[in-house]
Amino acid sequence: MPANKKKKYTVTFEPSGLKVTVDEGTTLLKAANKVGIYISSICGGDGYCGKCKLVVDHGEFKTIQTGLLAPDEVSNGVVLACQTKIFSDIITTVPKSHDLQTGRILIDSNRTKASDAATIDPLVKKIYLELPKPSIHDHTADHERLYLAIHDHVETDTIQTGLRTIQKLSHVLKKSDYKVTVTVGHRGGTTELIDVEIGDNSKQNYAMAIDLGTTTVVAHLIDTVVGKTLDTEATYNSQINFGEDYIRRIIYGEENDAFDQLQARIANDVNELIVTLTERNRVDLSDITACVCSGNTAMTHFLLKLDPTGIRREPYVASADFVPPIRAAEAGIHINKRGLLYCLPSVAAYVGGDIVAGALATGIYQTDKLTLLVDIGTNGEVVLGNKDWLICASSSAGPAFEGSGVKNGMRAASGAIEKFRILDGGQIEYKTIGEASPIGICGSGLLDIIAQFVTHGIIDRTGRFADLSDPRISEGDQGIQFQIAPPMDGHDEIAITATDIANLMRSKAGVFASIRVLMASTQITSDDIEAVFLAGGFGNYMNTRHAIDIGMLPDVDADKIHFVGNTSMAGAKMVLLARNALETAESIASNMTYFDLMSHPGYMEEFIKAGFLPHTDLSLFPSVKFEKSKKT
Amino acid sequence: MPANKKKKYTVTFEPSGLKVTVDEGTTLLKAANKVGIYISSICGGDGYCGKCKLVVDHGEFKTIQTGLLAPDEVSNGVVLACQTKIFSDIITTVPKSHDLQTGRILIDSNRTKASDAATIDPLVKKIYLELPKPSIHDHTADHERLYLAIHDHVETDTIQTGLRTIQKLSHVLKKSDYKVTVTVGHRGGTTELIDVEIGDNSKQNYAMAIDLGTTTVVAHLIDTVVGKTLDTEATYNSQINFGEDYIRRIIYGEENDAFDQLQARIANDVNELIVTLTERNRVDLSDITACVCSGNTAMTHFLLKLDPTGIRREPYVASADFVPPIRAAEAGIHINKRGLLYCLPSVAAYVGGDIVAGALATGIYQTDKLTLLVDIGTNGEVVLGNKDWLICASSSAGPAFEGSGVKNGMRAASGAIEKFRILDGGQIEYKTIGEASPIGICGSGLLDIIAQFVTHGIIDRTGRFADLSDPRISEGDQGIQFQIAPPMDGHDEIAITATDIANLMRSKAGVFASIRVLMASTQITSDDIEAVFLAGGFGNYMNTRHAIDIGMLPDVDADKIHFVGNTSMAGAKMVLLARNALETAESIASNMTYFDLMSHPGYMEEFIKAGFLPHTDLSLFPSVKFEKSKKT
Repeated sequence: MPANKKKKYTVTFEPSGLKVTVDEGTTLLKAANKVGIYISSICGGDGYCGKCKLVVDHGEFKTIQTGLLAPDEVSNGVVLACQTKIFSDIITTVPKSHDLQTGRILIDSNRTKASDAATIDPLVKKIYLELPKPSIHDHTADHERLYLAIHDHVETDTIQTGLRTIQKLSHVLKKSDYKVTVTVGHRGGTTELIDVEIGDNSKQNYAMAIDLGTTTVVAHLIDTVVGKTLDTEATYNSQINFGEDYIRRIIYGEENDAFDQLQARIANDVNELIVTLTERNRVDLSDITACVCSGNTAMTHFLLKLDPTGIRREPYVASADFVPPIRAAEAGIHINKRGLLYCLPSVAAYVGGDIVAGALATGIYQTDKLTLLVDIGTNGEVVLGNKDWLICASSSAGPAFEGSGVKNGMRAASGAIEKFRILDGGQIEYKTIGEASPIGICGSGLLDIIAQFVTHGIIDRTGRFADLSDPRISEGDQGIQFQIAPPMDGHDEIAITATDIANLMRSKAGVFASIRVLMASTQITSDDIEAVFLAGGFGNYMNTRHAIDIGMLPDVDADKIHFVGNTSMAGAKMVLLARNALETAESIASNMTYFDLMSHPGYMEEFIKAGFLPHTDLSLFPSVKFEKSKKT
Repeated sequence: MPANKKKKYTVTFEPSGLKVTVDEGTTLLKAANKVGIYISSICGGDGYCGKCKLVVDHGEFKTIQTGLLAPDEVSNGVVLACQTKIFSDIITTVPKSHDLQTGRILIDSNRTKASDAATIDPLVKKIYLELPKPSIHDHTADHERLYLAIHDHVETDTIQTGLRTIQKLSHVLKKSDYKVTVTVGHRGGTTELIDVEIGDNSKQNYAMAIDLGTTTVVAHLIDTVVGKTLDTEATYNSQINFGEDYIRRIIYGEENDAFDQLQARIANDVNELIVTLTERNRVDLSDITACVCSGNTAMTHFLLKLDPTGIRREPYVASADFVPPIRAAEAGIHINKRGLLYCLPSVAAYVGGDIVAGALATGIYQTDKLTLLVDIGTNGEVVLGNKDWLICASSSAGPAFEGSGVKNGMRAASGAIEKFRILDGGQIEYKTIGEASPIGICGSGLLDIIAQFVTHGIIDRTGRFADLSDPRISEGDQGIQFQIAPPMDGHDEIAITATDIANLMRSKAGVFASIRVLMASTQITSDDIEAVFLAGGFGNYMNTRHAIDIGMLPDVDADKIHFVGNTSMAGAKMVLLARNALETAESIASNMTYFDLMSHPGYMEEFIKAGFLPHTDLSLFPSVKFEKSKKT
């Protein structure tokens, strides 16, 4: 018997009833990964985020003692999935807080105007051609015959063709009586002849625009003939089990030699979206001729299996900011076998193609107005400038507003407290997504809480609770906390801790310090800013008054602030439908100046100043008015 | 027992002793193919060329009755391998006439001047780069960092890179401390980054130049750093069992769905040459970064598995005249995994890359002198022109001068009569290759025989034997024949038949009619021609006086005629070593005007006129002097 032959056990996950067989000693988190059950986990399985809680109903296991679990949780069988190894068949219950089915993902892009553009010039197009037939007076070979005809329709110096296409060409031409549909795509400064089909199939040309988010992946199915979005679909990025932020995933990949696995996960997510969309809309996969992906630098690296390890180490350099178009099949993306995959170019390791897409979609690169673009997601990227110049930075403030590092933080899913205010009488009022019982607090809710707390004097400008005698303040398992909602409907109490507040303030300080560094470097004041674009999911639901109140955004007039939606997707779609938009994106990425805040001498000072509510320098926030501190 | 389950038998080929096991009913030709034994076969196994003779020593077989075998051959166990099916274990002897080991292949190219060119600019080059390292002040991604450095060394608008290369890039840069050797190649108007190696390997850059002949394949191993040919090797084209000319091979491929097999054969031949050369010269296969192939249109199609069937059918159109560079691996050629394969462009279905190479190598495209380039191989291609214009045609006269359709015809191998003359006393004198006993007659010998026969009155100007009472004339198994050599040393009699003479005259008439059509179309006379270049194997050994005497070449002064050797190889090498030579070749192929003789109204008349010795119009051949007919 081999020495390492291990016993096998079955793990059953309730309430889904999904079962998986694993070796003795496997952690519950790995078992969940294997069967495809989503378990919230921020630290990538290192045992310190305390998010991956499961209840073991039955079976033998070994786990660790941890301060991340309250005593009553331990007595109720709650364990950290990443730290619990199984030694018998196990039945375990997955708490509803991990459930993502009712999640709210921002899938639409409200600024894409491409659909009504009169000049659709997709990256990959189909052209129907009726070729003159060869004769004893015209011996032009089939390949050159086709090139001549293509040159009549496409402005290009160089046409390239893969061997497979030339190999089948004569057969297709003869069989079609020289009436064919060619698929041609822009590829690295040349035009590639991608496919030749019999007859007229030129009206069947579709493409996918993909917003490759760290947390969510959104896909739009586009009819590139009419330039219309036919349908949309979204899913959570299933890499999430390897870490909720991409730095964690890079570490996981490096330590476990798991970049193949990370690649397969994201490719699979994209493929599932494509299959859902094509089946629902009865589109043939072979008629999907292009796919444009917009993601941060790390996500692009994961998708293409480029080495991302330089991203997390000084001096923070990517393998590639610009990636040439490749066959989608090379990245395991299943569209037309020879269809092309384009990834929007990055500016730097921490300012990716999604931000370039944002600059493209918002038109910040061509406006006269001095504009600030803020995208607060897992990272907080900011772009400042206009048609003459663009500068950018990434706050790397951490994803506190996405719920990470916050006791009852969660993403914007059913049951998340998304709005919060303190009434005149001091009572609390909140609203959950889906009007469900509260199970946590999402970004916009957290923002509201901090803003309402400081304006109503519940916390002071340093973020500390002002009056510890408030009956809603107590000592919880993670220290001092303020009860937002009492236990109800079988759900636990929802509270915000002093540590949560500190984490959120660090996040907002990171974003604002980034903005300040960019403003300072160009000697711009808040008054000079003519427009603020808020991009991404969080931006779209945030109370901007509250964002200014806590000093996350500069104090500008409300009418200057615009929600611009999912600009990552909007930019991807623009590129898909207009070849010159890709060139514009490349030009934006090349010309945008990147500020590396980690090595910037002024950043730390700005960060410390922004660590107050709203800021040490109140003159920067003339519109912010705090109520006198009053007890409730 | 399955219905089609056949018995297996072993065929033993003597004298090599090679054995192969095949199904009952398999032909001996297929068995020989399977074990890799060369059996001369022109018709591709259709049973009418009569070349594939074998002697069955032992065993049961079924064969056909055929006039292609003499009665004594039949009684001695001689069969046509293609028409003989086996029904027991068989022992068979392969006659020495099939033996190719001592063949003489023209492997050198005496006009390639590239080796002493001061400006070597190979299609694929290696460059050693010491890159600036990334720092907190320089966040350029690895991919773009490398591009910037390459742009300092290579003049190009567009650099392309395959995904695999980008995927490994960061690792290689880190491991090499940013000191790397890049391999960059010209690919369809762009520059491709083919490979990145650790450290300085820039002095190890080799390439293969391949002359892809219908009959023979020649390879030169080139050191592209110094521009020197290190070694050469040649082999017979092993497709030859599917037909000695490429039309037969196309038919075979079409009828047997065997284009895969044809491709594998030629790729295997090339690979064997590469292995021989690299092992002998201790060159690593991965340091062979490029391969340039020069072949006729059909051979290029076979190698790349393009559909060649249009070549043999009116209106005679190729799949592709210009083939983009591909990875050699895509054609099954084993060099560096990402190394490039270039095929010289064709002009038309019957004027291929070998002729374009010839025009390039001879400089006909840039000379002031009105020049005629003649390449008599399996086909007879002719090019006429100078720096202002080039016109070309292919005689498709058939490979009679390669021994096909000639009773004792054979290729230039040991024992072939290569020189022949009639002495003043009327006696015959001949010389064989390798001074061996005569076993057949090769092209230059056949040319000598026709010329000497007509100048000495043995045949008249129509090619008919003038005096049937000559004791050397007899009725053989293929009709009237003239004995060149009596049976000796165990070899059969060598003779030339009336039919042979007619076939050879048709061949020469085809070549000359082609030349005449080109001359007539440009109103040029023999006196206007300032130079005649004779290319290819036959050209190099031919007695040019005899070629004029029989009316194959126009009657020009002897000092205008130049043997230019293997210009197909010379052109391939020029392209390999100078990027602009490839562009020149493409320009030549684009600009050369092709005359399709099969549809040309004047060709048939010229062909009939040229069907006399030397021609119906003797004024075209003022230098030709026939002796009075005299009996010997």
